[in-house]
Amino acid sequence: MSLQKGFRFDQEGAGYEMAFIHNAWYVACWAEELKSEPSSRTILNENIVLWRGQDGRVRATENVCPHRLLPLSKGRIVGDDLQCGYHGLTFDGNGGCILAPTQSDAPDCAIKHYRVHEHMGMVWIWMGDPTLADTNNIYDLPQYHQDGWGVAYGDALEVEANYLLLCDNLCDPTHVNYVHPSTLGNPDGINAPVTHRDTSWGVLTERLTSNSAPTGFVKTFGNYQNKVDMWQRYLMYLPSVSIIDFGATAVGTGSWKRGGEGRIQVYSCHFMTPITETRTIDRWLHVRNFRVKDYSVGDSISEQFRIAFGEDKEILEAVQCEEIRNNGRKKIGLDLDASAGLFRSKINRLLRAEMSARVR
Amino acid sequence: MSLQKGFRFDQEGAGYEMAFIHNAWYVACWAEELKSEPSSRTILNENIVLWRGQDGRVRATENVCPHRLLPLSKGRIVGDDLQCGYHGLTFDGNGGCILAPTQSDAPDCAIKHYRVHEHMGMVWIWMGDPTLADTNNIYDLPQYHQDGWGVAYGDALEVEANYLLLCDNLCDPTHVNYVHPSTLGNPDGINAPVTHRDTSWGVLTERLTSNSAPTGFVKTFGNYQNKVDMWQRYLMYLPSVSIIDFGATAVGTGSWKRGGEGRIQVYSCHFMTPITETRTIDRWLHVRNFRVKDYSVGDSISEQFRIAFGEDKEILEAVQCEEIRNNGRKKIGLDLDASAGLFRSKINRLLRAEMSARVR
Amino acid sequence: MSLQKGFRFDQEGAGYEMAFIHNAWYVACWAEELKSEPSSRTILNENIVLWRGQDGRVRATENVCPHRLLPLSKGRIVGDDLQCGYHGLTFDGNGGCILAPTQSDAPDCAIKHYRVHEHMGMVWIWMGDPTLADTNNIYDLPQYHQDGWGVAYGDALEVEANYLLLCDNLCDPTHVNYVHPSTLGNPDGINAPVTHRDTSWGVLTERLTSNSAPTGFVKTFGNYQNKVDMWQRYLMYLPSVSIIDFGATAVGTGSWKRGGEGRIQVYSCHFMTPITETRTIDRWLHVRNFRVKDYSVGDSISEQFRIAFGEDKEILEAVQCEEIRNNGRKKIGLDLDASAGLFRSKINRLLRAEMSARVR
Repeated sequence: MSLQKGFRFDQEGAGYEMAFIHNAWYVACWAEELKSEPSSRTILNENIVLWRGQDGRVRATENVCPHRLLPLSKGRIVGDDLQCGYHGLTFDGNGGCILAPTQSDAPDCAIKHYRVHEHMGMVWIWMGDPTLADTNNIYDLPQYHQDGWGVAYGDALEVEANYLLLCDNLCDPTHVNYVHPSTLGNPDGINAPVTHRDTSWGVLTERLTSNSAPTGFVKTFGNYQNKVDMWQRYLMYLPSVSIIDFGATAVGTGSWKRGGEGRIQVYSCHFMTPITETRTIDRWLHVRNFRVKDYSVGDSISEQFRIAFGEDKEILEAVQCEEIRNNGRKKIGLDLDASAGLFRSKINRLLRAEMSARVR
Repeated sequence: MSLQKGFRFDQEGAGYEMAFIHNAWYVACWAEELKSEPSSRTILNENIVLWRGQDGRVRATENVCPHRLLPLSKGRIVGDDLQCGYHGLTFDGNGGCILAPTQSDAPDCAIKHYRVHEHMGMVWIWMGDPTLADTNNIYDLPQYHQDGWGVAYGDALEVEANYLLLCDNLCDPTHVNYVHPSTLGNPDGINAPVTHRDTSWGVLTERLTSNSAPTGFVKTFGNYQNKVDMWQRYLMYLPSVSIIDFGATAVGTGSWKRGGEGRIQVYSCHFMTPITETRTIDRWLHVRNFRVKDYSVGDSISEQFRIAFGEDKEILEAVQCEEIRNNGRKKIGLDLDASAGLFRSKINRLLRAEMSARVR
Repeated sequence: MSLQKGFRFDQEGAGYEMAFIHNAWYVACWAEELKSEPSSRTILNENIVLWRGQDGRVRATENVCPHRLLPLSKGRIVGDDLQCGYHGLTFDGNGGCILAPTQSDAPDCAIKHYRVHEHMGMVWIWMGDPTLADTNNIYDLPQYHQDGWGVAYGDALEVEANYLLLCDNLCDPTHVNYVHPSTLGNPDGINAPVTHRDTSWGVLTERLTSNSAPTGFVKTFGNYQNKVDMWQRYLMYLPSVSIIDFGATAVGTGSWKRGGEGRIQVYSCHFMTPITETRTIDRWLHVRNFRVKDYSVGDSISEQFRIAFGEDKEILEAVQCEEIRNNGRKKIGLDLDASAGLFRSKINRLLRAEMSARVR
């Protein structure tokens, strides 16, 4: 599918930033963040406490003691359970109150609990109907586990913007030359054709820049002296995982499909968790096929990404701020909006399905 | 009266945090804070200016010049009066405008004034009907004035919580082991019986821990090697003065009633002033019966209290925050709430009486 | 016209702080602030981007890209035009979209632009009906351009108050002794007569202090040992330019009218730009007739002004704050309010005229 001429972004983009998809796995935190203390996170506006029991397993419940409403994250882990920091009421991972030390019997006051699962170094949490939670549906990048690939963890980047503004950005290769001119931008890429297509899992947007001068990134890590073929594949998974598969190979020797000689390839992975309607945490990591044992290479890539994602953050926060200030102002559509518009329309369909399921 | 089984905290606790008792003396500031400059304080949501005239007496009026609304606390003391910092309008301690230097006669524009009284190193202010103000009703601790007792002043601790959340805490010995495990807590105290009783001035809650290992505090200041009898008596005066009488004596040699051999006793005094519905200042001091001339002992006790009250502050501010976020959420009741619940019901009765008196 | 006895400030002063006069030139920024980067300013609540093209001319448009609402001030200047920092849409100084680099033709999406003009080292902007903009109506101080006078630029002082509170202050010589006792105040001036009169351009308020001890300012810069005649003339131009013409001359040798021997004279110039209803930027400079080549004298005067205007800022922000807190509270009127009251009534008349013109 080529770009749709005359697509109007605001026809598909308006309004549903204010709702979230609940029947989905979101990243709650890095796995290593949960040690001997309980830890609180706001996810889809819900205040949640996570803790790792003495048995090593992670639990999550709503972050409130039903007695005086003190957040349970102010308390302490006792065995596999969580003790309130005000009067010692103790809850297990199913939200049940199992002990009230100041009186003879524990009151009947269970609190909401959540399904959680560790995967790829992160704790994933299911925010919707517990009967639908299936850990097989958690996103997986095969290369993360394979030999010949090096993993490096990045940051938990907090962005004061709705998660769909981040998704728009991650369906859109054309912003790179304007937002990241000195890092990821490529003057030869401005006119490279962008295509996108609808998939079962989301939207795939591609740009192939053939026979181009290597970008700064490619020059640094690929040692290319001459022109290269470069690709960017934006895999935007529903509802909020983005994988950017990009790399370079000597001109004419292949592509991401065939694995050309001296090919360098990176999966830049973004796991976006909506905090509120106007705040999102983007936890990112990357997986590469070159110098995989050299940690300094991972750090060096992260440092470049850190600069670039900071540039995105500045743009997206300003856009969010202006959307609020100019509430309801009509926007003009450009051809480049087609891919993000398709993703939003798919989100919209999921939201409608969830809402009507809740009514039934 | 023993603990009421099945008491539900939220039956007596809901709603009236949004009103204040006005016919009462509150602490406005430490006496020594008023020197050569006027000083502003918000008390029960009212903006008040206090100043000490050349004659040494303290005055208080509303903190506003009726001309352009500049706070009079931006002006200066002239003799016993207060001059506005914008155009020199001058007010006396009864709120009368006595001078308007830019014109021949002062306008007729009196402002509200308040009854104030110095007592126990603090300035007390009467916030209600002036005809009911009686300085004999100001709280007094006899030991503050007696030989054999040492006084040490603490801090003006600002807590972002309604004053009744502080009062709840000060009717409740059971929180000590969970909020202050390393300072005031006593593992032997968890199962010590708590009783409370209704009094003419408020609520008295008591816990006697007999034949117990001494707490850290008691060990430090009492030099006890062996087990002791310890008591905590929480005297919660209407509307917002709390005296905690606590101490220890050798097992079986007496109690606070009889004054046993080697007894150590401390009155921890909290004078709580509601600033707004969600902010309170707790001015605290303490009075002890041991090493009364050694200032370093007072400082050392204050240092322990400072840590403990900081722990309370963290809990109470989190509770206030969650009460706002979870507005209207039903809470479960525990037996330990009986004392605080009684105090709140007495506050409620006073409030209703004040409101109906205002209607008449 | 002498002071009106019994004038009530709040009769003319209430309510219309919430509207602005649009058909007027306001100062947007110092001219030297516009270099190689676009720059944003909020003026009368409108978000505006200003930039200097390669040709040296200043342009101004609304600060928003109509595609995704990113502020254009996040973009870059390309030639004489402004390129959006997200996808490269480019706008000229008339607000027309002249380039959309990611597609073949630019969309039809012009944005609002503003008339701007450089004068006296500042960029002036016309906020109203463009057909009424006439650069001849921009305020001019002839002495700024003349030999024998020295110019020194001050600061852009941000005051958290409505611009009319600043105007009140700049129609009112009587505040000086209370707000600026140590800098500009003059004890002899307290009883000096103040007069004001209505003019075509605003309100002129005058105070002549004859045969007076020199103020600190006059002593420092005039080398007067003996008594002097001093004047303060407050020229308050509609809607928000204030010129304070003040100085001193030997007793009986003349005045600002005749130019007495050894006369020192300063024009303290305030160009006030309303940002929002409760925020104003006061850009100030001054022009003097003594030691005009000595930059240190300009700096030294600026330093005194900086202290004094900081004192005004403190008063005006407190008044603004109390006006909001005491919303609707009636104020008492003093004789000294007559001049500011007249200025406000003239503002009111202009506002009504603008509003009825917009309806037609």
